[in-house]
Amino acid sequence: MTASATTTAGISFADLDRLMKPRSIMIVGASSTPGSLGHTTVENVLEHSDFQGDVHLVNPRGGELKGHVLHPDIDSVPAGPIDVALLLVPAEAALDALRRCAARGVGTAVVFTGGFGEVGDDGKAAERAMRDLARDTGMRIYGPNCAGLTSLAPRLGLTFSTEFRNDGHGGPLALVTQGGGLGRSLMQGSDRGVRFGRWFSTGNEVDLDSADFIAWLARQHDVRAICVVMEGLKDGVRFLAAIQAAHRAGKPVAVLKVGRSSFGAQAAQSHTASLAGEDAVNEAVFAQYGVIRVDDLDEMLDVASLLARAGGRPFRRICVYSSSGGAGVLAADMISAAGLEMAELSAATIQEMARHAPSYAALANPVDLTTKALTDTALARRCLVPLFADPGIDAVIYPITSNYAATTETSVRNLMDIAREAPIPFVPVWMSSRRGPAHDLLIEQGFAPLYSLRNATRAMARCDAYVRAPRERLAGLPLAAPATPAAAGPWNEAQAKALFARHGIRVPREATAATAREAAQAATRIGFPVALKLVADGVQHKSDVGGVVLGVRDEAAAERAFASIMDAAARHGVAASAIRGVIVAEMVRGGIETLVGVHRDAVFGPMLSFGAGGVAVEIVADVARCRLPADRPAIEAMVDQTRVARLLPAHRGRPAYDRNALVDAIERTAALFLSLGDGVEALEINPLLVLEQGQGAVALDGVIH
Amino acid sequence: MTASATTTAGISFADLDRLMKPRSIMIVGASSTPGSLGHTTVENVLEHSDFQGDVHLVNPRGGELKGHVLHPDIDSVPAGPIDVALLLVPAEAALDALRRCAARGVGTAVVFTGGFGEVGDDGKAAERAMRDLARDTGMRIYGPNCAGLTSLAPRLGLTFSTEFRNDGHGGPLALVTQGGGLGRSLMQGSDRGVRFGRWFSTGNEVDLDSADFIAWLARQHDVRAICVVMEGLKDGVRFLAAIQAAHRAGKPVAVLKVGRSSFGAQAAQSHTASLAGEDAVNEAVFAQYGVIRVDDLDEMLDVASLLARAGGRPFRRICVYSSSGGAGVLAADMISAAGLEMAELSAATIQEMARHAPSYAALANPVDLTTKALTDTALARRCLVPLFADPGIDAVIYPITSNYAATTETSVRNLMDIAREAPIPFVPVWMSSRRGPAHDLLIEQGFAPLYSLRNATRAMARCDAYVRAPRERLAGLPLAAPATPAAAGPWNEAQAKALFARHGIRVPREATAATAREAAQAATRIGFPVALKLVADGVQHKSDVGGVVLGVRDEAAAERAFASIMDAAARHGVAASAIRGVIVAEMVRGGIETLVGVHRDAVFGPMLSFGAGGVAVEIVADVARCRLPADRPAIEAMVDQTRVARLLPAHRGRPAYDRNALVDAIERTAALFLSLGDGVEALEINPLLVLEQGQGAVALDGVIH
Repeated sequence: MTASATTTAGISFADLDRLMKPRSIMIVGASSTPGSLGHTTVENVLEHSDFQGDVHLVNPRGGELKGHVLHPDIDSVPAGPIDVALLLVPAEAALDALRRCAARGVGTAVVFTGGFGEVGDDGKAAERAMRDLARDTGMRIYGPNCAGLTSLAPRLGLTFSTEFRNDGHGGPLALVTQGGGLGRSLMQGSDRGVRFGRWFSTGNEVDLDSADFIAWLARQHDVRAICVVMEGLKDGVRFLAAIQAAHRAGKPVAVLKVGRSSFGAQAAQSHTASLAGEDAVNEAVFAQYGVIRVDDLDEMLDVASLLARAGGRPFRRICVYSSSGGAGVLAADMISAAGLEMAELSAATIQEMARHAPSYAALANPVDLTTKALTDTALARRCLVPLFADPGIDAVIYPITSNYAATTETSVRNLMDIAREAPIPFVPVWMSSRRGPAHDLLIEQGFAPLYSLRNATRAMARCDAYVRAPRERLAGLPLAAPATPAAAGPWNEAQAKALFARHGIRVPREATAATAREAAQAATRIGFPVALKLVADGVQHKSDVGGVVLGVRDEAAAERAFASIMDAAARHGVAASAIRGVIVAEMVRGGIETLVGVHRDAVFGPMLSFGAGGVAVEIVADVARCRLPADRPAIEAMVDQTRVARLLPAHRGRPAYDRNALVDAIERTAALFLSLGDGVEALEINPLLVLEQGQGAVALDGVIH
Repeated sequence: MTASATTTAGISFADLDRLMKPRSIMIVGASSTPGSLGHTTVENVLEHSDFQGDVHLVNPRGGELKGHVLHPDIDSVPAGPIDVALLLVPAEAALDALRRCAARGVGTAVVFTGGFGEVGDDGKAAERAMRDLARDTGMRIYGPNCAGLTSLAPRLGLTFSTEFRNDGHGGPLALVTQGGGLGRSLMQGSDRGVRFGRWFSTGNEVDLDSADFIAWLARQHDVRAICVVMEGLKDGVRFLAAIQAAHRAGKPVAVLKVGRSSFGAQAAQSHTASLAGEDAVNEAVFAQYGVIRVDDLDEMLDVASLLARAGGRPFRRICVYSSSGGAGVLAADMISAAGLEMAELSAATIQEMARHAPSYAALANPVDLTTKALTDTALARRCLVPLFADPGIDAVIYPITSNYAATTETSVRNLMDIAREAPIPFVPVWMSSRRGPAHDLLIEQGFAPLYSLRNATRAMARCDAYVRAPRERLAGLPLAAPATPAAAGPWNEAQAKALFARHGIRVPREATAATAREAAQAATRIGFPVALKLVADGVQHKSDVGGVVLGVRDEAAAERAFASIMDAAARHGVAASAIRGVIVAEMVRGGIETLVGVHRDAVFGPMLSFGAGGVAVEIVADVARCRLPADRPAIEAMVDQTRVARLLPAHRGRPAYDRNALVDAIERTAALFLSLGDGVEALEINPLLVLEQGQGAVALDGVIH
């Protein structure tokens, strides 16, 4: 078995070296019919790749193709190692072909054929058989239902695509996409200067998956950044482990997540889950683990374009250089809208520019050296060399509003000469729909333009957020909590609160009463005023069934409240046998109502949520999320994303609230959830009341299920 | 005086017919030097326009140019009417030239020259003189500091731009921009099939302004939509009157607002104002008056592209047709993100497609007829003609992920043949960076593509919002309230509340006390519990100086509260002479805290704000706005934009709150503000407590200043 493995966070990734540097390739389903997939695949390997090793072609009809024998079946192929087999066979023949490949000791079998998991249950069963075959034999399986792989330096096209021959000279970006359509679209980004040197279309991923390719690409010295299009994500932990590998290698990963998972419906019972939805979970996890999220293909190309030339550099303090006043102001608007900053030029830079620039030039940001500087090479150089060297600037953005033919070409040449030697990135933005020589020149010379100020500044913000993510810390964090035996539920409110208390989460003083008299006595013990709350199996939202009475001030009132709760429960059809009693609880007053919860995401596992609490959480919609396990900085970062967190510091004569106790309580809630094992789907404390500074935080209500 | 006028909502707009169909043009500053502005302008008029009338050239050096005498000065030009004068003269000579033009009875003088209001106070003074000259003589002035105007059918280029000669055949869109740079960029949108037939670059707008051009364009039968780039907006009412004129003519107006106004600082005292900021005001006003707002040039071209072919049509229920599964899902994601709907196909449509499509085709939205349908013309037609005729679909979006050369060209041709006869718009999205014949074909045939699914769906959402705006109602609404004499302020809290009560806005029962004893007596009269609140000149935020005590339960407590307020005020440096007493007020409990306010925007005048109230309004940041005067539907629409409004209906055992009383109170607040005259800058009620259904809404606190 040749497939060695890289281990990261206890997770194994495939070694793809034998796949990527094969000495022998077998094509099963090679075809003599021009234009067929089997024919194009042969052409791609024999004529459009730099591959010099052995090629074995298989076709049941036999004969010869391009000087190679067409063997009637896999078993007829002469003995000797086969590193890669490409399978273009009918779906129903795929499994048999794979078994024969495995028997021949094939390193990796690439299954182009579709018609498996994506079409129905039979296909899913076939995929399971493939997965078992890979596990049992050590042969790696790539696909099925995939467009294969493209590598441009050296050229290796293990793909049936007729477009492989048109893929140019590649570049420092790598691409991993499940499907072929969106990946091919991104490959054509070469026409705007965004060049992917390697592309893996991984298909249904029965064995090798996107994480394997991300992790392998992270170890390639000539890869600067990795772009990923994911249609489905089965194993969130593997994906994050691959991201950690990329962080350790210093390579940014940008991800476009297409479609929505099946997450949600079954967990919709708890607020947390019904607020979540997969997109919000993805967004939170991507931000937490330093993944650059993009929303569409054009944004992927914008981000990739910046990463290719300046990945890992900050894009925060932006200087605009423009000879159009309108474009300068628009750029400033967009910089602000993207959350970036207009760079402040140093006095020395301004002074130096002032020595040369026309008197009517604008020497603050946006800088406008007037149209004279567009064509006056010496003037441009004298002003712009110091500008590009200003330590207060992270990048210079250059809006090209219109194509003025020769004038534009001259000014672009001038600027590229300066930018080539500058210590910071130069980002031209080609705002005109009229392309032309100046546009193409920018691409040729490595200054591929972006196409709108809004897109350019958003892409900068994406890249800048990557720089600011705590990547070193993230790269080392454990991705999963130690397994714990399942705890025995279910828990009613009283039991849940006892559990909270045992885990150091403060709860109100309270007792459970079975009768009105007991309730009155408990209230006296606890001290008035108190709250009375129904505890009944199957009743999640007590207030919906009249099960809550607040502000009970004396014994008589407590007895009345008990009776009223029982009446209301009966009226709402709560069976007497379901009623476990009434909680009599101290009224904790003041404070800020928050919510903390954990639910289990189908892909990423336990997700912690925090936000504004109370009855109307869905309406207030103030929730931030964070994957577990999470360290305290990650929890603090989550808290800081909410609006309710802004209420915690002293404000307008209001006191400060106990943030520290809040974060403690959130940490303990997370630890409690993880300690309960996989049987628990969700845990929610709402409200978690944050009291004034020094007085702690109290879990007034909570559910575990 | 030739300039007649159109009157809309009491506002006059210029009649531009003489400018746009001149019989005689004078060019002052005509130059014999090739490449100079004065030379290019002459070429544009003589050689690149269809203009056949008289041309008079003026240049102090005299001589001859292109068969025309160069007159040494304006006075030397032979007698006769001059419809348009184009001025390319130094800034310091402009005013004299304009006076001479006026004396000659020139209809409109277009001043290309810059160096006026944009450079300093002298320039501003010159602009005032120009404005006076226009007013006194009736000669209209266009500019200064402008790029002039371009009209393509018939061709008329009153501009110095060398690019005019490259402007193609134009189209049904019209463009108004103040500056030249962004406008020229949009004109080059013709290369992506977005064709502006007329472009006005209006410069500093001393006389003719953007509103004049919008209103004039609204009356041109061959204009389908109007696109506007505004760098500054001086007169909001004129602009809105022009928008109303466009609504009456059924022509959509899309606006890109560049830069920020000086609004804000002086009004930052009140919450409402400090929450506002010009961008939020623009957004609210644009939405309220049915203006399509766009954020960048590319978005303007996307929106214009849709408006040119399907302006005034809905774009809500979108059908995706794609042979890439990934693109189909991505399109569905984007449709949802843009707030649009995935169209539901009718059973009949699905049945009809099923009769022809391959068995493995996807006949739900996204529709995928498989790659077979890309090149099989008959199959495509049989399936897509019924699809395009489905009454449940507003538009079909067609993602073209990659350029597959001939295959793409064939499929595009097939689709265009079907779409040409279809009752709904067909929106191809060219997602590849590789252009080519199929791309150009789409443009030539009137199906100009958009370039990303995100951009396409957002543009559709912009156009769809326009269709849904109540344009007929808006077109007739008064834009300004009748002038009222200024009321005498200032008002302290007690006085403000008295004013509220007189205008039908309910306030708590309360009294002002000068001593602790008076406070106790007032409290007894009002009924315990009460709140005590300091009234002192110059103290806006009472709680900041310890000036509020809530929940006072008896006379002794009232006396203590009075004393504590006085102590706290003294500690916070409130002068005894500033103190006007202490309000003793009924404690109104329960209810939802909201905020209603009005402030005066520098451009649009009185702006009403509504949102979540309480101490932390800046933090909660839940505010919607609406310009005044506003009718009840506009106020209801504003309320519905807030999150706090979602708390009003009954929810989870909580009662419903008195929405009707809330809207009444907002209407009365608006009426009160308008009745106070121009002297009042802002009015704010916070909290406006909305009580349970039938119990009204109470203004607990308020300021007017």
